[in-house]
Amino acid sequence: MTAYDPNLRSFVASANEPGCDFPIQNLPYGVFRRRGTMERPRVGVAIGDQILDIHRCNILNLFEGEAVRAAACCSAPTLNGLMARGPESWAALRSALTEILREGSTALEGKEDEALVAMADAELFLPAEIGDYTDFYCSIHHATNVGSMFRPDNPLMPNYKHIPIGYHGRASSIVASGTPIRRPHGQTKAPDATAPSFGPAKLLDYELEVGIFVGAGNELGEPISINDAEDQIFGYCLLNDWSARDIQAWEYQPLGPFLAKSFASTLSPWVVTTAALAPFRVPAFERADDDPAPLPYLDSEDNRESGGVDMTLEVYISSTKMRDEGVEPMRLSQGNFRNMYWTAAQMLTHHASNGCNLRPGDLLGSGTVSGPEKDERGCLLELTWRGAEPLELPSGESRKFLQEGDELTLKGFCEREGAVRIGFGECRGVVAAD
Amino acid sequence: MTAYDPNLRSFVASANEPGCDFPIQNLPYGVFRRRGTMERPRVGVAIGDQILDIHRCNILNLFEGEAVRAAACCSAPTLNGLMARGPESWAALRSALTEILREGSTALEGKEDEALVAMADAELFLPAEIGDYTDFYCSIHHATNVGSMFRPDNPLMPNYKHIPIGYHGRASSIVASGTPIRRPHGQTKAPDATAPSFGPAKLLDYELEVGIFVGAGNELGEPISINDAEDQIFGYCLLNDWSARDIQAWEYQPLGPFLAKSFASTLSPWVVTTAALAPFRVPAFERADDDPAPLPYLDSEDNRESGGVDMTLEVYISSTKMRDEGVEPMRLSQGNFRNMYWTAAQMLTHHASNGCNLRPGDLLGSGTVSGPEKDERGCLLELTWRGAEPLELPSGESRKFLQEGDELTLKGFCEREGAVRIGFGECRGVVAAD
Repeated sequence: MTAYDPNLRSFVASANEPGCDFPIQNLPYGVFRRRGTMERPRVGVAIGDQILDIHRCNILNLFEGEAVRAAACCSAPTLNGLMARGPESWAALRSALTEILREGSTALEGKEDEALVAMADAELFLPAEIGDYTDFYCSIHHATNVGSMFRPDNPLMPNYKHIPIGYHGRASSIVASGTPIRRPHGQTKAPDATAPSFGPAKLLDYELEVGIFVGAGNELGEPISINDAEDQIFGYCLLNDWSARDIQAWEYQPLGPFLAKSFASTLSPWVVTTAALAPFRVPAFERADDDPAPLPYLDSEDNRESGGVDMTLEVYISSTKMRDEGVEPMRLSQGNFRNMYWTAAQMLTHHASNGCNLRPGDLLGSGTVSGPEKDERGCLLELTWRGAEPLELPSGESRKFLQEGDELTLKGFCEREGAVRIGFGECRGVVAAD
Repeated sequence: MTAYDPNLRSFVASANEPGCDFPIQNLPYGVFRRRGTMERPRVGVAIGDQILDIHRCNILNLFEGEAVRAAACCSAPTLNGLMARGPESWAALRSALTEILREGSTALEGKEDEALVAMADAELFLPAEIGDYTDFYCSIHHATNVGSMFRPDNPLMPNYKHIPIGYHGRASSIVASGTPIRRPHGQTKAPDATAPSFGPAKLLDYELEVGIFVGAGNELGEPISINDAEDQIFGYCLLNDWSARDIQAWEYQPLGPFLAKSFASTLSPWVVTTAALAPFRVPAFERADDDPAPLPYLDSEDNRESGGVDMTLEVYISSTKMRDEGVEPMRLSQGNFRNMYWTAAQMLTHHASNGCNLRPGDLLGSGTVSGPEKDERGCLLELTWRGAEPLELPSGESRKFLQEGDELTLKGFCEREGAVRIGFGECRGVVAAD
């Protein structure tokens, strides 16, 4: 593995700009093609405002050894093949890509036009074919807030501090960033109504989450130990788990959320690798003195010391009126992934602890990322306290829940002294006019 | 569509035997290859004790028109392509297969060895690549029984009679009939314990379910009306939704079952088509006078009159000791799919009512099929009332829950006066020795 070098620069000048999401230290993977063409979508890596076409580089004989095999997976329209190869292969490709893209490299001399595509000219797709999608519930702040609304006498279940609570989500309705979201219809029942009715959901919400892509995975019946879990994580992205709170409230007992969530989830196009996040690892959530210790299968020294990721997460909203008036999107919240009660490794190990097989490209959602402060809450349900405290938009409008035309943008980035900023790009979705 | 003819016979003599699961009126699809070969698995149709190789028939030019296109999908190792083509295509292929296999047909004269494979010589696979698996909870008898154990004060939730309750299941761990099942490890907490512990599940159970395969499916954002739902159902099979009750009790709140179910689900190899079940359609569940009517989106005259299927479902158990002593498997229960509170069409329409896209090969589980009588209960949790009333096996052993070596076999069939018996074959699984 290439040693981390914060001083490394790329010959792609935009990658060296301060505040850029995609410096040479990042190298996130995505699936793209030139906009307006019928090219087969293929895997590329983001560098500044450009995308490096890995398949093209392979044709140009720029790789050697294991990197050739990893790059061969990048001619596919999904990341699944690369994800399946495992950490040694990922390291080989990352190292080769770093060499190709570094300042002073001559690998692409005279071939830039062939191997680099401007992001502005590219169409981006879902990064992987997602076999199974699992959504966790790992923010204790979110769980406590929501629990206190739905079950005031019992906000946090007795299992919460022992189990990374999760449930199976719907894979078919995960859509690429930018896909318009249609307000779902469904059954709801107002507290004072005698019977439910069917119609458009009234309480449409977003949820700020981190998506975690599984790497090579495990065979059915073969758990993944907490010590092996990090090697099984290919990378991270941003996930908006759109939710219809009124459908959810009526349907979720006793088997959990179903149609309240399955109408759409939006995924960001770029998958930031575990390797790129290495400089931003932090200790796992610090449990209170009277909190139980994790059971041994979910505990390791490495996980305690560096299971967390210091990743800032933001949500912006822009209404139709705001856009018409030229008003900038308003930030709704700014939280941090390190506030999660359970780490990504614990989610993955717990998931496979019963022998359940995880496959390359399977997606784990972290659950809504909320922090202890009010402006760290990752959904409107919490921010407006179920509509009791509406938000004021700069256009003079107010919001309890989402309205047609509202565009939500999730952003994520890692920053710290002595390291180069690593960004996640954006995860966008607009509530379609009906 | 070929008119139903109970007197039609096949030139495959075994298909005409009384009690045969696979007469010419059935023609269920599955995926097979000759055992011990490296042949590519492909779609076949069961006829008596034989499998007709549809791809081979296509090479022999036995199809015309739409049946050629449908048969072309059968060279694939899954049924997904055929499922995607829709009811007119299915009818064309069914009609052509009936002509090929009927008594007096000369289509296969001299070519039987080429086109027919003895089931005894065949290896059977999962019939489809399952993108998403959804498990419903549509037996009111099961829901009431289980509810009264887990929530004695509140057995049936207020939403139960309004919503076909369901949740997303795990697709990756659905296995073919015959695959050994490993007892999962997991977190459990005894009622009198102060903290949970991790280890092998103690309360291992099966669940007798009917699996429903989606046909062509719908686009995201486009619901399926109750009147179109039957055309969206490709067919039915048997499903054993293995469950670890002690893991379930500790993990399921508030987001529903997760690791208690995701370690394995077993599917039968043969998919019985909606067309084959036409003679066995019966009215939907008769609701009590004080039960609410289904909301309009879940209601239609056709569904009320013929939304149900009169399908007998049985479960057999055989312990290691029973097999060693040559004792026949013992029947644990005999129920009927017509006892479900919600029909398959209602499950499917509800699932897509929020715009969630269903894809060809997606699987809906009905939930445990239990009837009003004690010997109609579809899992050990109910049969032994959570272990309070152990079952006696003919070997002198007793069972509260499953033990290593226990083999479970689900069977299903439709029978009535004036119609030919339609069978589902078997869905088998044995609890592996650890």
